[in-house]
Amino acid sequence: MAKVRPLADRVLVRRIEAEEKTAGGIVLPDTAKEKPKEGEIVAVGEGKLLDSGSRSELQVKVGDRVLFTSYAGTEVKIDGEEFLIMREEDILAVRQ
Amino acid sequence: MAKVRPLADRVLVRRIEAEEKTAGGIVLPDTAKEKPKEGEIVAVGEGKLLDSGSRSELQVKVGDRVLFTSYAGTEVKIDGEEFLIMREEDILAVRQ
Amino acid sequence: MAKVRPLADRVLVRRIEAEEKTAGGIVLPDTAKEKPKEGEIVAVGEGKLLDSGSRSELQVKVGDRVLFTSYAGTEVKIDGEEFLIMREEDILAVRQ
Amino acid sequence: MAKVRPLADRVLVRRIEAEEKTAGGIVLPDTAKEKPKEGEIVAVGEGKLLDSGSRSELQVKVGDRVLFTSYAGTEVKIDGEEFLIMREEDILAVRQ
Amino acid sequence: MAKVRPLADRVLVRRIEAEEKTAGGIVLPDTAKEKPKEGEIVAVGEGKLLDSGSRSELQVKVGDRVLFTSYAGTEVKIDGEEFLIMREEDILAVRQ
Amino acid sequence: MAKVRPLADRVLVRRIEAEEKTAGGIVLPDTAKEKPKEGEIVAVGEGKLLDSGSRSELQVKVGDRVLFTSYAGTEVKIDGEEFLIMREEDILAVRQ
Amino acid sequence: MAKVRPLADRVLVRRIEAEEKTAGGIVLPDTAKEKPKEGEIVAVGEGKLLDSGSRSELQVKVGDRVLFTSYAGTEVKIDGEEFLIMREEDILAVRQ
Repeated sequence: MAKVRPLADRVLVRRIEAEEKTAGGIVLPDTAKEKPKEGEIVAVGEGKLLDSGSRSELQVKVGDRVLFTSYAGTEVKIDGEEFLIMREEDILAVRQ
Repeated sequence: MAKVRPLADRVLVRRIEAEEKTAGGIVLPDTAKEKPKEGEIVAVGEGKLLDSGSRSELQVKVGDRVLFTSYAGTEVKIDGEEFLIMREEDILAVRQ
Repeated sequence: MAKVRPLADRVLVRRIEAEEKTAGGIVLPDTAKEKPKEGEIVAVGEGKLLDSGSRSELQVKVGDRVLFTSYAGTEVKIDGEEFLIMREEDILAVRQ
Repeated sequence: MAKVRPLADRVLVRRIEAEEKTAGGIVLPDTAKEKPKEGEIVAVGEGKLLDSGSRSELQVKVGDRVLFTSYAGTEVKIDGEEFLIMREEDILAVRQ
Repeated sequence: MAKVRPLADRVLVRRIEAEEKTAGGIVLPDTAKEKPKEGEIVAVGEGKLLDSGSRSELQVKVGDRVLFTSYAGTEVKIDGEEFLIMREEDILAVRQ
Repeated sequence: MAKVRPLADRVLVRRIEAEEKTAGGIVLPDTAKEKPKEGEIVAVGEGKLLDSGSRSELQVKVGDRVLFTSYAGTEVKIDGEEFLIMREEDILAVRQ
Repeated sequence: MAKVRPLADRVLVRRIEAEEKTAGGIVLPDTAKEKPKEGEIVAVGEGKLLDSGSRSELQVKVGDRVLFTSYAGTEVKIDGEEFLIMREEDILAVRQ
């Protein structure tokens, strides 16, 4: 489905709204601390460039449901739908 | 039990409250200095990416009771329970 | 067509205006967040210098349509047309 | 005796008070400059992670009497006694 | 002609004035963005020191006409003529 | 004589006062610029940790008379005499 | 002649005054930009420490006439004459 290929260690993420999350069992707490957001990986880059010149494979794959920091990513609209492009670094964890 | 898999050198931590700590013998002092908090490792990532492209194994494992800096981690609620996702870097020591 | 050869991990980009983008299906959202811009790669450099002394091949090639951060690049006019010279680092993704 | 295992290049230090130091012959000067503090190593970590993935052995061992910068470490109480957890980087020298 | 040998990844550049550029077809735009300047390479250094101890050959050579960032370089007068000494890093592209 | 062993790339320095320096022929100028101080190396560390895990031998040895930046080092008193513990990085040159 | 041995990638420089420079043909321009100063290398260090543990040979040698940034170096007086100790990094070019 993805119409863009993220570069390097970037991923394309479709944000999942709070309503869906309640069903999935993960709810983000309501405190003063920075709160992660949730989304689904739609496309992944080729990986971060290593000193050796090769690239490290990403730890996330298309379809993964991920938690990421709230300040992560750049918004982009593709065919009228909003996505986020962010670095894998900004992803905290994958739901299992 | 863990429903999320932390990425890279991150761990999922269940915070242990002060009441439990008194029983365990470790009490945090009441001074102006930064005070570590205590918790239990619930899930660990695959390790930090090295220049060689491989990953360094974490020094903590599921079940470890750890002391970490008070500003460490991002809060996340899973099935109604609060956890912290933090980097191994923010863990000071493991209780033995 | 390109009359300049970018150095290292830099690329020469012809900016694509908003009118063209509507046709292509990618529209940038209208929020407070930083918004990427779109363009076409016109020339690429030899790649970033690695510690080994060799260079890493760029992930984009001439003709690629790319999304890049809005603050990316230095403007330059060649034969009356405006271009941007930017680092590959500032390119978020390639349209497919 | 140590009930905690410090991570990486961290050490657990029992602070030595000024009274003991007078006997030992080392007294810290009374000027405006930053003044080191003195303590005894109670536990050591496995060492700092190297790019190769191995760890560098620490230069201090349990029982060493060390001078460290006054702003070093995080305080922690174990069985009612106060300790400091600090990085080896913050240790200036070992008494012989 | 050059009476100085730049060190490391530095180059000696003779600035080309705006009048010459009009003839050459490259004109710098008149906007608020940072605008590159144009010049000719008069001398080059031996290259940047790599971790291996060898040096990376520069991507520009004597005679190249280059675009560089406007804040690049240190001015120096040799035999009454003004030059700029700058790092290759500050050169954006070479005219072909 | 040294009762402390500096760690890593640190050295123990006995400061030499201005009176001695006049005799030795090196006098520090009286301007607004930062002025180096002079001292004698009393003990040296094992060297800076390299990425390979080995240590680089220090360029100074016990007995060397050195010039160092005035803001260098942490003061420490041993048997009533004041010393400085500083990094080799802060030493500018050795007198010959 | 040099009575001090600079450490690592440092050099000892005897500053050359403006009167001498007029004769040599190099005059520094009178603008708002940072202006390099001129001097002669009197002594050189063993070179910068590389990750491999070896040292990179300096690109300048005793007797070289160099241009360096005006804020470079620490002043030191040896036998009543003023010198500068600076890092090779601060040297822009060598006169030929």
